[in-house]
Amino acid sequence: MQLLKERILKDGTVKPGNVLKVDSFLNHQMDISLINEIGKEFKSRFSECPITKILTIEASGIGIACITAQYFNVPVIFAKKTQSLNLDGDMYTTKVQSFTHKKVYDVILSKKFLGPDDHVLLIDDFLANGCALLGLIDIVRESGATLEGAGIVIEKGFQEGGDRIRNMGIRLESLAIIDSMSDDSLTFRD
Amino acid sequence: MQLLKERILKDGTVKPGNVLKVDSFLNHQMDISLINEIGKEFKSRFSECPITKILTIEASGIGIACITAQYFNVPVIFAKKTQSLNLDGDMYTTKVQSFTHKKVYDVILSKKFLGPDDHVLLIDDFLANGCALLGLIDIVRESGATLEGAGIVIEKGFQEGGDRIRNMGIRLESLAIIDSMSDDSLTFRD
Repeated sequence: MQLLKERILKDGTVKPGNVLKVDSFLNHQMDISLINEIGKEFKSRFSECPITKILTIEASGIGIACITAQYFNVPVIFAKKTQSLNLDGDMYTTKVQSFTHKKVYDVILSKKFLGPDDHVLLIDDFLANGCALLGLIDIVRESGATLEGAGIVIEKGFQEGGDRIRNMGIRLESLAIIDSMSDDSLTFRD
Repeated sequence: MQLLKERILKDGTVKPGNVLKVDSFLNHQMDISLINEIGKEFKSRFSECPITKILTIEASGIGIACITAQYFNVPVIFAKKTQSLNLDGDMYTTKVQSFTHKKVYDVILSKKFLGPDDHVLLIDDFLANGCALLGLIDIVRESGATLEGAGIVIEKGFQEGGDRIRNMGIRLESLAIIDSMSDDSLTFRD
Protein backbone atom coordinates (compact mmCIF):
# COMPACT_ATOMS: atom_id res chain seq x y z
CA MET A 1 0.00 0.00 0.00
CA GLN A 2 1.86 2.99 -1.36
CA LEU A 3 0.34 5.67 0.90
CA LEU A 4 1.33 3.67 3.97
CA LYS A 5 4.87 3.01 2.77
CA GLU A 6 5.37 6.70 2.06
CA ARG A 7 4.12 7.56 5.52
CA ILE A 8 6.47 5.06 7.15
CA LEU A 9 9.40 6.55 5.23
CA LYS A 10 8.35 10.08 6.16
CA ASP A 11 7.42 9.66 9.83
CA GLY A 12 8.75 6.29 11.02
CA THR A 13 12.01 6.13 12.95
CA VAL A 14 14.27 3.18 13.57
CA LYS A 15 15.47 2.65 17.14
CA PRO A 16 18.14 0.28 18.45
CA GLY A 17 17.04 -3.36 18.66
CA ASN A 18 15.13 -3.37 15.36
CA VAL A 19 12.38 -1.22 16.79
CA LEU A 20 10.35 0.74 14.22
CA LYS A 21 8.55 3.63 15.84
CA VAL A 22 5.39 4.66 14.04
CA ASP A 23 3.81 6.19 17.11
CA SER A 24 3.08 9.52 15.43
CA PHE A 25 0.41 8.01 13.16
CA LEU A 26 -0.37 4.38 14.03
CA ASN A 27 -0.10 3.24 17.62
CA HIS A 28 0.08 6.12 20.07
CA GLN A 29 -1.19 9.02 18.02
CA MET A 30 -3.52 7.71 15.32
CA ASP A 31 -4.08 9.44 11.98
CA ILE A 32 -7.70 8.50 11.42
CA SER A 33 -7.69 9.53 7.73
CA LEU A 34 -4.79 7.17 7.05
CA ILE A 35 -6.45 4.41 9.06
CA ASN A 36 -9.58 4.84 6.98
CA GLU A 37 -7.50 4.23 3.86
CA ILE A 38 -6.03 1.17 5.58
CA GLY A 39 -9.55 -0.07 6.37
CA LYS A 40 -10.59 0.37 2.73
CA GLU A 41 -7.52 -1.54 1.58
CA PHE A 42 -8.31 -4.47 3.88
CA LYS A 43 -11.88 -4.49 2.53
CA SER A 44 -10.57 -4.50 -1.01
CA ARG A 45 -8.20 -7.41 -0.30
CA PHE A 46 -10.80 -9.52 1.53
CA SER A 47 -13.85 -8.35 -0.44
CA GLU A 48 -14.89 -11.84 -1.52
CA CYS A 49 -14.77 -13.31 2.01
CA PRO A 50 -18.02 -13.69 3.98
CA ILE A 51 -16.60 -12.03 7.11
CA THR A 52 -18.94 -11.96 10.13
CA LYS A 53 -16.51 -10.77 12.84
CA ILE A 54 -13.25 -8.87 13.01
CA LEU A 55 -11.02 -10.14 15.83
CA THR A 56 -8.10 -8.20 17.25
CA ILE A 57 -6.15 -8.01 20.48
CA GLU A 58 -5.85 -5.07 22.84
CA ALA A 59 -4.63 -2.43 22.78
CA SER A 60 -3.26 -0.89 19.60
CA GLY A 61 -5.18 -3.16 17.22
CA ILE A 62 -8.57 -1.99 18.47
CA GLY A 63 -8.78 1.37 16.70
CA ILE A 64 -7.64 -0.07 13.37
CA ALA A 65 -10.11 -2.95 13.72
CA CYS A 66 -13.01 -0.57 14.48
CA ILE A 67 -12.31 1.71 11.53
CA THR A 68 -11.87 -1.33 9.26
CA ALA A 69 -15.10 -2.92 10.52
CA GLN A 70 -17.07 -0.02 9.07
CA TYR A 71 -16.20 -1.26 5.58
CA PHE A 72 -17.29 -4.82 6.37
CA ASN A 73 -20.40 -3.91 8.40
CA VAL A 74 -19.51 -6.42 11.11
CA PRO A 75 -18.79 -6.18 14.85
CA VAL A 76 -15.31 -6.05 16.30
CA ILE A 77 -14.31 -8.40 19.10
CA PHE A 78 -11.07 -7.89 20.95
CA ALA A 79 -9.20 -10.46 22.96
CA LYS A 80 -8.04 -9.21 26.34
CA LYS A 81 -4.66 -9.62 27.92
CA THR A 82 -4.89 -10.61 31.52
CA GLN A 83 -2.75 -11.92 34.30
CA SER A 84 -5.71 -12.65 36.51
CA LEU A 85 -7.66 -15.86 36.56
CA ASN A 86 -10.75 -14.08 37.79
CA LEU A 87 -12.67 -14.81 34.61
CA ASP A 88 -16.36 -14.24 34.27
CA GLY A 89 -18.15 -17.08 32.53
CA ASP A 90 -16.85 -19.20 29.71
CA MET A 91 -13.77 -17.94 27.95
CA TYR A 92 -11.53 -19.09 25.15
CA THR A 93 -8.01 -18.78 26.52
CA THR A 94 -4.52 -18.99 25.14
CA LYS A 95 -1.06 -17.87 26.19
CA VAL A 96 1.01 -15.27 24.40
CA GLN A 97 4.65 -14.46 24.97
CA SER A 98 5.55 -10.80 24.82
CA PHE A 99 9.14 -10.12 23.82
CA THR A 100 8.73 -6.41 24.49
CA HIS A 101 7.60 -6.94 28.07
CA LYS A 102 9.44 -10.24 28.57
CA LYS A 103 6.52 -12.13 30.04
CA VAL A 104 3.78 -14.57 29.18
CA TYR A 105 0.21 -13.43 29.59
CA ASP A 106 -3.15 -15.08 29.21
CA VAL A 107 -5.34 -13.89 26.37
CA ILE A 108 -9.06 -14.40 26.68
CA LEU A 109 -12.19 -14.01 24.61
CA SER A 110 -15.73 -14.64 25.78
CA LYS A 111 -17.23 -17.72 24.14
CA LYS A 112 -20.45 -15.76 23.66
CA PHE A 113 -18.95 -13.78 20.81
CA LEU A 114 -17.38 -16.41 18.54
CA GLY A 115 -18.67 -19.77 17.36
CA PRO A 116 -18.69 -22.26 14.47
CA ASP A 117 -20.94 -20.10 12.25
CA ASP A 118 -18.51 -17.20 12.24
CA HIS A 119 -16.06 -16.22 9.50
CA VAL A 120 -13.22 -14.29 11.07
CA LEU A 121 -10.80 -11.68 9.82
CA LEU A 122 -7.88 -11.00 12.18
CA ILE A 123 -6.56 -7.44 12.26
CA ASP A 124 -3.47 -6.12 14.00
CA ASP A 125 -1.05 -3.24 13.66
CA PHE A 126 2.25 -5.16 13.72
CA LEU A 127 3.51 -8.63 12.88
CA ALA A 128 7.03 -9.51 14.04
CA ASN A 129 7.60 -12.87 15.72
CA GLY A 130 3.90 -13.67 15.32
CA CYS A 131 3.11 -14.58 18.92
CA ALA A 132 0.06 -12.34 19.26
CA LEU A 133 -1.37 -13.46 15.92
CA LEU A 134 -0.76 -17.14 16.74
CA GLY A 135 -2.68 -16.60 19.96
CA LEU A 136 -5.63 -15.21 18.02
CA ILE A 137 -5.45 -18.11 15.55
CA ASP A 138 -5.53 -20.49 18.50
CA ILE A 139 -8.69 -18.82 19.80
CA VAL A 140 -10.39 -19.02 16.39
CA ARG A 141 -9.58 -22.74 16.15
CA GLU A 142 -10.88 -23.34 19.65
CA SER A 143 -14.14 -21.62 18.68
CA GLY A 144 -14.72 -23.71 15.56
CA ALA A 145 -15.09 -20.54 13.47
CA THR A 146 -13.67 -20.28 9.94
CA LEU A 147 -10.51 -18.22 9.73
CA GLU A 148 -10.66 -16.21 6.50
CA GLY A 149 -7.30 -14.57 6.97
CA ALA A 150 -5.28 -11.91 8.73
CA GLY A 151 -4.75 -8.28 7.82
CA ILE A 152 -1.62 -6.64 9.20
CA VAL A 153 -0.61 -3.03 8.78
CA ILE A 154 3.17 -3.47 9.09
CA GLU A 155 5.02 -6.78 8.88
CA LYS A 156 8.66 -7.04 9.85
CA GLY A 157 9.60 -9.42 7.06
CA PHE A 158 13.01 -10.13 8.58
CA GLN A 159 11.42 -11.73 11.64
CA GLU A 160 9.81 -15.13 11.52
CA GLY A 161 6.13 -14.36 12.17
CA GLY A 162 5.05 -13.90 8.55
CA ASP A 163 6.62 -17.19 7.41
CA ARG A 164 5.16 -19.07 10.35
CA ILE A 165 1.64 -17.87 9.57
CA ARG A 166 1.91 -18.40 5.78
CA ASN A 167 3.38 -21.88 6.30
CA MET A 168 0.25 -22.78 8.24
CA GLY A 169 -1.72 -22.12 5.04
CA ILE A 170 -3.31 -19.00 6.46
CA ARG A 171 -3.97 -16.09 4.15
CA LEU A 172 -1.93 -13.15 5.38
CA GLU A 173 -2.21 -9.69 3.87
CA SER A 174 0.36 -7.22 5.16
CA LEU A 175 0.02 -3.71 3.79
CA ALA A 176 3.72 -2.96 4.19
CA ILE A 177 6.42 -5.60 4.59
CA ILE A 178 9.80 -4.36 5.73
CA ASP A 179 12.65 -6.60 4.61
CA SER A 180 15.45 -4.70 6.27
CA MET A 181 15.97 -1.56 8.23
CA SER A 182 18.75 0.44 9.79
CA ASP A 183 19.22 3.95 11.10
CA ASP A 184 19.33 5.48 7.66
CA SER A 185 17.52 3.06 5.35
CA LEU A 186 14.41 0.97 5.18
CA THR A 187 13.64 -1.54 2.44
CA PHE A 188 10.13 -2.73 1.60
CA ARG A 189 9.33 -6.04 -0.05
CA ASP A 190 7.80 -5.55 -3.51
CA MET B 1 -29.08 9.28 24.24
CA GLN B 2 -32.19 7.20 23.76
CA LEU B 3 -30.73 4.54 21.42
CA LEU B 4 -27.94 3.83 23.90
CA LYS B 5 -30.26 3.64 26.90
CA GLU B 6 -32.51 1.19 25.05
CA ARG B 7 -29.50 -0.93 24.18
CA ILE B 8 -28.29 -0.97 27.79
CA LEU B 9 -31.75 -2.08 28.94
CA LYS B 10 -31.90 -4.76 26.23
CA ASP B 11 -28.38 -6.20 26.39
CA GLY B 12 -26.74 -4.96 29.59
CA THR B 13 -26.62 -7.22 32.64
CA VAL B 14 -26.02 -6.33 36.26
CA LYS B 15 -23.51 -8.46 38.17
CA PRO B 16 -22.76 -8.52 41.90
CA GLY B 17 -20.69 -5.58 43.14
CA ASN B 18 -22.43 -2.95 41.03
CA VAL B 19 -20.88 -4.26 37.84
CA LEU B 20 -22.76 -3.41 34.65
CA LYS B 21 -21.76 -5.74 31.83
CA VAL B 22 -22.15 -4.22 28.38
CA ASP B 23 -19.56 -6.47 26.79
CA SER B 24 -21.87 -7.63 24.00
CA PHE B 25 -21.87 -4.19 22.33
CA LEU B 26 -19.41 -1.77 23.93
CA ASN B 27 -16.21 -3.11 25.46
CA HIS B 28 -15.45 -6.66 24.39
CA GLN B 29 -17.65 -7.09 21.34
CA MET B 30 -18.23 -3.69 19.74
CA ASP B 31 -21.31 -2.80 17.71
CA ILE B 32 -19.74 -0.39 15.25
CA SER B 33 -23.10 0.98 14.01
CA LEU B 34 -24.04 1.94 17.56
CA ILE B 35 -20.61 3.42 18.18
CA ASN B 36 -21.00 5.52 15.05
CA GLU B 37 -24.22 6.94 16.51
CA ILE B 38 -22.32 7.59 19.74
CA GLY B 39 -19.60 9.41 17.78
CA LYS B 40 -22.21 11.58 16.03
CA GLU B 41 -23.78 12.41 19.38
CA PHE B 42 -20.43 13.52 20.84
CA LYS B 43 -19.88 15.69 17.77
CA SER B 44 -23.30 17.23 18.18
CA ARG B 45 -22.69 18.00 21.87
CA PHE B 46 -19.22 19.47 21.33
CA SER B 47 -19.84 20.95 17.87
CA GLU B 48 -18.88 24.49 18.84
CA CYS B 49 -15.54 23.47 20.42
CA PRO B 50 -12.33 23.88 18.39
CA ILE B 51 -11.12 20.35 19.14
CA THR B 52 -7.65 19.47 17.77
CA LYS B 53 -7.07 16.12 19.51
CA ILE B 54 -9.17 13.37 21.07
CA LEU B 55 -7.45 11.81 24.07
CA THR B 56 -8.40 8.45 25.56
CA ILE B 57 -6.78 5.70 27.59
CA GLU B 58 -6.17 2.12 26.56
CA ALA B 59 -7.81 -0.22 26.00
CA SER B 60 -11.59 -0.05 25.63
CA GLY B 61 -11.73 3.70 24.99
CA ILE B 62 -9.63 3.47 21.83
CA GLY B 63 -12.25 2.14 19.43
CA ILE B 64 -14.87 4.63 20.56
CA ALA B 65 -12.35 7.47 20.31
CA CYS B 66 -11.33 6.45 16.76
CA ILE B 67 -14.90 6.24 15.47
CA THR B 68 -15.73 9.56 17.17
CA ALA B 69 -12.62 11.24 15.73
CA GLN B 70 -14.01 10.74 12.22
CA TYR B 71 -16.72 13.30 13.02
CA PHE B 72 -14.20 15.84 14.32
CA ASN B 73 -11.51 15.23 11.68
CA VAL B 74 -8.77 15.13 14.30
CA PRO B 75 -6.21 12.54 15.41
CA VAL B 76 -6.69 10.26 18.40
CA ILE B 77 -4.00 9.96 21.03
CA PHE B 78 -4.21 7.26 23.65
CA ALA B 79 -2.46 7.22 27.00
CA LYS B 80 -0.77 3.94 27.80
CA LYS B 81 -0.90 2.01 31.01
CA THR B 82 2.48 0.75 32.05
CA GLN B 83 4.21 -0.72 35.01
CA SER B 84 7.63 -0.29 33.49
CA LEU B 85 9.81 2.75 33.78
CA ASN B 86 11.54 1.97 30.51
CA LEU B 87 10.14 5.05 28.82
CA ASP B 88 11.38 6.28 25.50
CA GLY B 89 11.88 10.02 25.39
CA ASP B 90 9.86 12.67 27.12
CA MET B 91 6.53 11.54 28.51
CA TYR B 92 3.72 13.12 30.47
CA THR B 93 3.07 10.74 33.34
CA THR B 94 0.45 10.32 36.01
CA LYS B 95 -0.72 7.56 38.31
CA VAL B 96 -4.14 5.90 38.15
CA GLN B 97 -5.65 3.57 40.69
CA SER B 98 -7.60 0.66 39.29
CA PHE B 99 -10.30 -0.63 41.59
CA THR B 100 -11.03 -3.52 39.26
CA HIS B 101 -7.45 -4.77 39.32
CA LYS B 102 -6.61 -3.38 42.76
CA LYS B 103 -3.35 -1.75 41.78
CA VAL B 104 -1.83 1.58 40.84
CA TYR B 105 -0.33 1.91 37.39
CA ASP B 106 1.57 4.61 35.58
CA VAL B 107 -0.16 6.25 32.65
CA ILE B 108 2.00 7.88 30.02
CA LEU B 109 1.62 10.02 26.92
CA SER B 110 4.43 11.18 24.68
CA LYS B 111 5.00 14.93 24.94
CA LYS B 112 5.33 15.04 21.16
CA PHE B 113 1.59 14.66 20.72
CA LEU B 114 0.07 17.24 23.06
CA GLY B 115 1.03 20.84 23.75
CA PRO B 116 -0.28 24.32 24.64
CA ASP B 117 -1.87 24.91 21.22
CA ASP B 118 -4.13 21.88 21.49
CA HIS B 119 -7.82 21.78 22.40
CA VAL B 120 -8.62 18.39 23.83
CA LEU B 121 -11.76 16.27 24.06
CA LEU B 122 -11.46 13.30 26.41
CA ILE B 123 -13.39 10.17 25.45
CA ASP B 124 -13.93 7.00 27.46
CA ASP B 125 -16.44 4.20 27.70
CA PHE B 126 -17.15 4.27 31.45
CA LEU B 127 -17.04 6.76 34.30
CA ALA B 128 -17.40 5.36 37.82
CA ASN B 129 -15.00 6.60 40.50
CA GLY B 130 -13.31 8.84 37.94
CA CYS B 131 -9.71 7.74 38.47
CA ALA B 132 -8.92 7.12 34.80
CA LEU B 133 -10.50 10.40 33.71
CA LEU B 134 -8.70 12.34 36.45
CA GLY B 135 -5.45 10.84 35.17
CA LEU B 136 -6.19 12.10 31.67
CA ILE B 137 -7.12 15.55 33.05
CA ASP B 138 -3.79 15.59 34.86
CA ILE B 139 -1.96 14.88 31.61
CA VAL B 140 -3.84 17.64 29.76
CA ARG B 141 -2.96 20.14 32.50
CA GLU B 142 0.67 19.08 32.44
CA SER B 143 0.73 19.66 28.67
CA GLY B 144 -0.69 23.18 28.85
CA ALA B 145 -3.42 22.25 26.36
CA THR B 146 -7.00 23.53 26.70
CA LEU B 147 -9.41 20.93 28.01
CA GLU B 148 -12.70 21.40 26.15
CA GLY B 149 -14.51 18.64 28.00
CA ALA B 150 -15.06 14.93 28.40
CA GLY B 151 -17.45 12.62 26.58
CA ILE B 152 -18.40 9.43 28.39
CA VAL B 153 -20.62 6.69 27.05
CA ILE B 154 -21.93 5.34 30.38
CA GLU B 155 -21.66 7.14 33.72
CA LYS B 156 -22.45 5.36 36.96
CA GLY B 157 -24.18 8.30 38.57
CA PHE B 158 -24.25 6.61 41.97
CA GLN B 159 -20.46 6.64 42.17
CA GLU B 160 -18.50 9.80 42.83
CA GLY B 161 -16.60 10.28 39.54
CA GLY B 162 -19.18 12.46 37.79
CA ASP B 163 -19.53 14.86 40.70
CA ARG B 164 -15.77 15.10 41.15
CA ILE B 165 -15.25 16.07 37.50
CA ARG B 166 -18.19 18.50 37.35
CA ASN B 167 -17.11 20.15 40.61
CA MET B 168 -13.77 20.89 38.96
CA GLY B 169 -15.68 23.02 36.44
CA ILE B 170 -15.02 20.57 33.62
CA ARG B 171 -17.70 20.07 31.01
CA LEU B 172 -18.78 16.44 31.18
CA GLU B 173 -21.21 14.93 28.70
CA SER B 174 -22.31 11.40 29.58
CA LEU B 175 -24.63 9.78 27.05
CA ALA B 176 -26.29 7.57 29.65
CA ILE B 177 -26.18 8.21 33.40
CA ILE B 178 -27.29 5.35 35.60
CA ASP B 179 -28.64 6.51 38.95
CA SER B 180 -29.34 3.10 40.40
CA MET B 181 -29.22 -0.51 39.36
CA SER B 182 -30.05 -3.91 40.72
CA ASP B 183 -30.58 -7.39 39.31
CA ASP B 184 -33.97 -6.55 37.89
CA SER B 185 -34.04 -2.79 37.43
CA LEU B 186 -31.94 0.03 36.13
CA THR B 187 -32.79 3.72 36.45
CA PHE B 188 -31.40 6.42 34.18
CA ARG B 189 -31.05 10.07 35.14
CA ASP B 190 -33.31 12.29 33.01
